[in-house]
Amino acid sequence: MEETQVKMGRVATREVLRFMTDCLKAAGAVAKAAQQQSELLIEADRLGHPSHGLNRLELYVNDILSGACAPNNEPKILKQTASTAWVDANNVLGATVSHFAMDIAMKKAKETGVGWVSVKGSNHNGMAGYWAKKASDRGLIGMAFTNTSPLLAPTRSKQAALGTNPLSVVAPGASDETFYLDMATTAVAVGKIEMQMRKDERLPNGWAQGPDGKETNDANLAFKTGCLMPLGGGENTSGYKGYGLAGMVELFCGILSGSKYGQHVRSWSHSGEGGAANLGHCFIALDPECFAPGFGDRLTDCMQYWRQLEPVDPNLPVLAPGDKEKKAAAVTDAKGTISYVKQQIDSCAALAERLKITPMTVQFEE
Amino acid sequence: MEETQVKMGRVATREVLRFMTDCLKAAGAVAKAAQQQSELLIEADRLGHPSHGLNRLELYVNDILSGACAPNNEPKILKQTASTAWVDANNVLGATVSHFAMDIAMKKAKETGVGWVSVKGSNHNGMAGYWAKKASDRGLIGMAFTNTSPLLAPTRSKQAALGTNPLSVVAPGASDETFYLDMATTAVAVGKIEMQMRKDERLPNGWAQGPDGKETNDANLAFKTGCLMPLGGGENTSGYKGYGLAGMVELFCGILSGSKYGQHVRSWSHSGEGGAANLGHCFIALDPECFAPGFGDRLTDCMQYWRQLEPVDPNLPVLAPGDKEKKAAAVTDAKGTISYVKQQIDSCAALAERLKITPMTVQFEE
Repeated sequence: MEETQVKMGRVATREVLRFMTDCLKAAGAVAKAAQQQSELLIEADRLGHPSHGLNRLELYVNDILSGACAPNNEPKILKQTASTAWVDANNVLGATVSHFAMDIAMKKAKETGVGWVSVKGSNHNGMAGYWAKKASDRGLIGMAFTNTSPLLAPTRSKQAALGTNPLSVVAPGASDETFYLDMATTAVAVGKIEMQMRKDERLPNGWAQGPDGKETNDANLAFKTGCLMPLGGGENTSGYKGYGLAGMVELFCGILSGSKYGQHVRSWSHSGEGGAANLGHCFIALDPECFAPGFGDRLTDCMQYWRQLEPVDPNLPVLAPGDKEKKAAAVTDAKGTISYVKQQIDSCAALAERLKITPMTVQFEE
Repeated sequence: MEETQVKMGRVATREVLRFMTDCLKAAGAVAKAAQQQSELLIEADRLGHPSHGLNRLELYVNDILSGACAPNNEPKILKQTASTAWVDANNVLGATVSHFAMDIAMKKAKETGVGWVSVKGSNHNGMAGYWAKKASDRGLIGMAFTNTSPLLAPTRSKQAALGTNPLSVVAPGASDETFYLDMATTAVAVGKIEMQMRKDERLPNGWAQGPDGKETNDANLAFKTGCLMPLGGGENTSGYKGYGLAGMVELFCGILSGSKYGQHVRSWSHSGEGGAANLGHCFIALDPECFAPGFGDRLTDCMQYWRQLEPVDPNLPVLAPGDKEKKAAAVTDAKGTISYVKQQIDSCAALAERLKITPMTVQFEE
């Protein structure tokens, strides 16, 4: 994705983390909240999902400064049973409440086999996979869901009524394997449409609709309309399944938790004003030890089998879910730096000035 | 779908149920097992999913007669915690163990908030949605998953390595609404390809691969190859998400339960020989009462909102998940009969003769 003709700026991974943490602290978050939110963002850049990384920082800063987010509140449990909890994020940063909620889910999973936690009153919590992986890193199967601002047009509809509503499942295999699935339930995320726009390329069918509700291949029009098609695309390629999956995610997030849901979630292009986002999330942890012995071996067997399948194009080997992210992380770690487009670097410099903190140290590439 | 130029035979719904039960009893199943399996099948015909209805009967009969399925065994719990159970189906009919397992999941959900049951050693258990709806009918959110014979080609792969692996989520709304999602994680099921073949129509892109691993629009070739594309189609329309979802379903079914999984599940075209299918299923029940009050109202609000969205084509209103099935059921119930293609009626007559039971009473339509 990064082979576009844009000048890139290289920043040491540690320096990005320092910068993000400083920004959030300057905006008013206590150190721990700022640190956790920044770790979440840097992980997205590390795994090759820049749309959820540094790119999102200013959004969080603005939400804190405008009072739409209250980073130093405490999330609290409103109701719980042996295996469930209903949590009020109390408008803290997404990372703060997501750690809080997944910790509860994992504790209950260790006690009863399953923990299922539903959260209201929250803000963006970054990559869903980050939270599912937190459970997987401790030997559990993790799942995480969140609702988001309306961008998905239900099959046959002219307008959007659900978010890109991601779902993620992460599970620990034997021999250091990890099944890592983290996907928007739209065909693609908005970032991919921006990318085509920048490259001046047309969109494949099944990505997005124009203002008349029909599929469009025009990236500019698609971006302006902001109406994504569900996974599966049009009706004759089963786009209603993607729509159903987005509905399922909303069911587990806004509908279960009593946060804003579906059409009631604030629009994607908000400016940080208009009050609290009141998003809903859902976190599940499941202990595979409660079932057949050998879970990790079987998972690894599958993943290894998939990779050695004969590919249609010999240059494009079959991947297992998460291989792309694993490879991106290895590259980032080897370099110790992350590269950003100039536009991103510039807006960080402006942000540093606005917040009166030390700007990032950047090396420009040719 | 039924407007093809094929002569149809109409059978009273009750008569189909009688016939199926008689067949399974004649093959050797005790009355209760035969009845439960037949109720599962008739519900598929009733909801407009004929591929999972009477059409499947002979498969089950053959599995019983060959000894591949042991309908009069008892399923048993191998391990359990407060919220989980690991069940050995002991090779009974799919309906028998699915009732057994979902009953456990629902009981645990009432006690702890969640019940999560994983099953090995099973046979086909029909429409996944039937099992999720069992929980929803009792005020719970139900989920059901099953693995199936390899038919899905992972993104970039020439061959199939996962099943059509359906997932379903059913939840009870207020005012008699039901959110009903039951979907294969392939773009389409094999039955849809058969339908295009019969109508002599080409396939849309993104449904199936030819023997070279490339997308094909040739329905005959696609049927012969037996290699479906995941939901999302090709890689540039995010087919890897459908592949990931199929992997997730396998994770909850074969990998968690220790049944056959992925590439090890017997092929789809087996003849009932070759031993037990040893399929894996997963059943989840969740009590929405453990979370924010008003779950049903919010769910109904969403579903009603979706239906009144402005449609792209005024003749094709936007549907909520499950509207198609609800409508089909109402039509079936009003008529009191189900229509089958002549080929299906003929094979039932032959089956009746083979099993020495009273054949179905059929009225042929013009």
